[in-house]
Amino acid sequence: MRWWGWGDPAHPPTLTARTLRFLGDAVGVAARPRPPVALGQVRLPPSSLPERALEALQEIVGAAGVRLDHPARVLHAAGKGYPDLVRLRAGEPGEAPDAVLYPADGAQVRAVLELCARASLAVVPFGGGTSVVGGVAPLRGEHGAVLALDMRRMGDVLDLDRESLTVAVQAGVRGPALERYLAPRGLTLGHFPQSFEYVSLGGCVATRSSGQASTGYGGVERMVLGLRLAAPAGDIQLPPVPASAAGPGLRQLLVGSEGTLGVICDLALRVRQAPRMRSYEGVFFEDFRAGVEAFRGLAQQHASPDVARLSDAAETRMSLAAAGAGGLKDRLGRRYLGLRGYGEAGCLAILGFEGDEEEVTARRRRALALVRRHGGLAVGRSPGEAWRRGRFSAPYLRDELLTHGVMVETLETATQWSSVSRLHTEVGRAIADALDAAGTPGLVACHVSHLYETGASLYFTFLARQREDDEIGQWRTVKDAASRAILSGGATITHHHAVGRDHAPWMVDEVGSTGLAALRALKRELDPTGIMNPGKLLG
Amino acid sequence: MRWWGWGDPAHPPTLTARTLRFLGDAVGVAARPRPPVALGQVRLPPSSLPERALEALQEIVGAAGVRLDHPARVLHAAGKGYPDLVRLRAGEPGEAPDAVLYPADGAQVRAVLELCARASLAVVPFGGGTSVVGGVAPLRGEHGAVLALDMRRMGDVLDLDRESLTVAVQAGVRGPALERYLAPRGLTLGHFPQSFEYVSLGGCVATRSSGQASTGYGGVERMVLGLRLAAPAGDIQLPPVPASAAGPGLRQLLVGSEGTLGVICDLALRVRQAPRMRSYEGVFFEDFRAGVEAFRGLAQQHASPDVARLSDAAETRMSLAAAGAGGLKDRLGRRYLGLRGYGEAGCLAILGFEGDEEEVTARRRRALALVRRHGGLAVGRSPGEAWRRGRFSAPYLRDELLTHGVMVETLETATQWSSVSRLHTEVGRAIADALDAAGTPGLVACHVSHLYETGASLYFTFLARQREDDEIGQWRTVKDAASRAILSGGATITHHHAVGRDHAPWMVDEVGSTGLAALRALKRELDPTGIMNPGKLLG
Repeated sequence: MRWWGWGDPAHPPTLTARTLRFLGDAVGVAARPRPPVALGQVRLPPSSLPERALEALQEIVGAAGVRLDHPARVLHAAGKGYPDLVRLRAGEPGEAPDAVLYPADGAQVRAVLELCARASLAVVPFGGGTSVVGGVAPLRGEHGAVLALDMRRMGDVLDLDRESLTVAVQAGVRGPALERYLAPRGLTLGHFPQSFEYVSLGGCVATRSSGQASTGYGGVERMVLGLRLAAPAGDIQLPPVPASAAGPGLRQLLVGSEGTLGVICDLALRVRQAPRMRSYEGVFFEDFRAGVEAFRGLAQQHASPDVARLSDAAETRMSLAAAGAGGLKDRLGRRYLGLRGYGEAGCLAILGFEGDEEEVTARRRRALALVRRHGGLAVGRSPGEAWRRGRFSAPYLRDELLTHGVMVETLETATQWSSVSRLHTEVGRAIADALDAAGTPGLVACHVSHLYETGASLYFTFLARQREDDEIGQWRTVKDAASRAILSGGATITHHHAVGRDHAPWMVDEVGSTGLAALRALKRELDPTGIMNPGKLLG
Repeated sequence: MRWWGWGDPAHPPTLTARTLRFLGDAVGVAARPRPPVALGQVRLPPSSLPERALEALQEIVGAAGVRLDHPARVLHAAGKGYPDLVRLRAGEPGEAPDAVLYPADGAQVRAVLELCARASLAVVPFGGGTSVVGGVAPLRGEHGAVLALDMRRMGDVLDLDRESLTVAVQAGVRGPALERYLAPRGLTLGHFPQSFEYVSLGGCVATRSSGQASTGYGGVERMVLGLRLAAPAGDIQLPPVPASAAGPGLRQLLVGSEGTLGVICDLALRVRQAPRMRSYEGVFFEDFRAGVEAFRGLAQQHASPDVARLSDAAETRMSLAAAGAGGLKDRLGRRYLGLRGYGEAGCLAILGFEGDEEEVTARRRRALALVRRHGGLAVGRSPGEAWRRGRFSAPYLRDELLTHGVMVETLETATQWSSVSRLHTEVGRAIADALDAAGTPGLVACHVSHLYETGASLYFTFLARQREDDEIGQWRTVKDAASRAILSGGATITHHHAVGRDHAPWMVDEVGSTGLAALRALKRELDPTGIMNPGKLLG
């Protein structure tokens, strides 16, 4: 993974000249590219790990299991949020772990936690490092030093129960590695967040992640049947039962704990038969509201596709503008759609069905019939396939846009169906107004995805010219405006990006002061010295 | 509700002479009926509520909102578990609330809790009072007195959001009242536990209840979108968002809290379109294992009916024996089934489909095709309709059996598919052995229901001649043996009966000592003086 951004350093560019021109016209780009500094130029504070602690850690995880070198510390200095990337690219992450640990098993994790609790060392569990909300920021809180606990050596599949369709894994296993294990066995987890290529499953569970196909497969909280959390105060081991009425939902309490209660070491996850057929296609709606009503109908009549995604008019226009010759635009040009009565307000949706051929055929027929009743126009497979091909590519594009001086950020929420359209307007306006006020008018786009019977997620993307004197301040102003609009609209501060550092100040609005006090009491019990991921989730 | 048992005092008898003869032969019945004592003969300890506290409570809830009379105290002296009924019928409940409170709204609940925390009065939230695990036992713990907080006056529907398909209710609303509100609007909650006729929705949520149609509609934990808990330390108000990644699952933590953290005052629940068609039918399997495999196939291929229930051979024989002339037995007599190769090991399943006609037809066709591949023989609607007619009747029958000196008790668990058959054998044997050892050999029957992709629930019923000198001791021996077999088999101590007093000693096996410590820390925060439902859930 690139230390200053996303993905394999050898990944080819994704930003087309067409898109760059479009953005130049729309928001403006930097006169000259602004590439990241060289790795050697990244300035880190010196490691403040005491020698005695280092020796004790080496005794637990072995000499090769502790790294203090500059590249390792840089790679664990931040996640992949916008402010992370801005700071890293400038060579000024501001903070870094004093050491990076690579435990090999749960016993080592336990020993590390016990040592850290005694020695007052903060611990930041680090899976794929893909947090976009500051979830892996190496904050030391009140402690003398901070360690990144990289889970990559704990990546084994432990057991497959074919009869129950459950798989037991170490929490450090990466998404692609698990799918590679499952695929030849005809199985899939079905969890494909945009960060899929790098995520660890433990990280997904700790952050209550939802994949792009969550409408069909459920969010990760639906996949977790059992888990083991190593907390400083002891282990919590919950067996993989399908359901239980034995008191409060402790599993669901640990899902989303974001490393603040302990380290998730093992997981038991539900898997499914891998689909034999996939059908992804585009549907055009006259306007956003018609699309929302169609999606609501799909969800409430139990006719949802596995992937459902409705772009608003702005996102639709951006997609069409970005599509090259022979692609989306040629097929869906304004002329074609205009002739059919779909104008500037038109919205493109992607519906993706997976399963056996018979099942996909039947579900697709039923869904499209419903969609047509809401004025939906099926426009064929190419938009669906284009989306599928590019579904993990946005983070690559973001890096290239940063090089051209364009801020690009995403944020998301979920709300009830009766509030979707109103919230779409309010949050979109809050973002646009904040960008205007910052003197950098921008583009704001949104899509609805992750359908539930009672509501859905709204996912906003915004782009604007970076304020080169104050990228982070500019970002924070917009982010705060959006967060206020979300919470005053009665929606959740996050549907699947989690809380981390960025959303922590909003948790009191989300769960109230008594709710927050309850979570803090839980933390005090499991992590009495407060070493686990300080400064995240609970503020 | 009968103070000594279940249901309307005017309810007609359900025990047939045929069933009584069958039980007389199988386990033996009392020579003479043993009816409950008269209400006036029930002995209660005198109320120890201090006069000052009584006055303060009357100030909060009004004079009519506090009752200390004998009938009110008897009606709140116990739930509806087997030991509850044994003690009540004998006129010796042993314990009773010192007063019964009927708050009218959340403000009164809050004021009551604050007073009780100051005055050291224990509070037992009381919804329908239908707990079968001692969940409403009026235990005072370390406190001077104990109050039952009856939620019946808080039974309003507050708001219906037709677009989002959510309904906001006060937690005291009863199941039938909510369905009566929803039915003319074409909606249903779809939550039908056996106790449906009396349950409050707050009680269902507090006990993580599952209805008989949970395979289709989900357990109550799937229906809860938002709630407000009044805890002694403050309110927790969680808005009805469809999903959220904002930290640990606080909603799911309060679901199943069993009144030990506070009083659930309001709920936002998902509702669904009421089905226009219902199709319930019987399917016969050659043996239990074939039925389990068929059910597993239904669940894992997403072809489950809404109600799915597979009786083992013993339960099947009991159903056939109990069925009167013209009913199940005539259609499914041994001769008919024997001719088709279904012998003593044959198992009857009920499959129930609900929805639009088109949907029911398609789902039913797909499920029956799958079932046939596992040797399932469709035997028509009459077993399904018979089950539907009688689905709330078991508690009535239990009362009549107690009058005839027959112990009847149920217990349940859930486990992964790969353990269902093994657990069925082990728990069944543990119960049978314990009954034998008690000198009262009995009948043990079981059904599989509540299907999940990864597993299912097992629900055991056992009957034996009561030991008239020691009914409770006899029961406890069998219950303990079953609980040990469940937990050593890796299953959960309860799938939907909850923990209450009876399962509290097993919670440490269920969630471990660190898990239990975490739950206790949470209780200390929300209920610092420990007034909420002492002696339940956390021991």
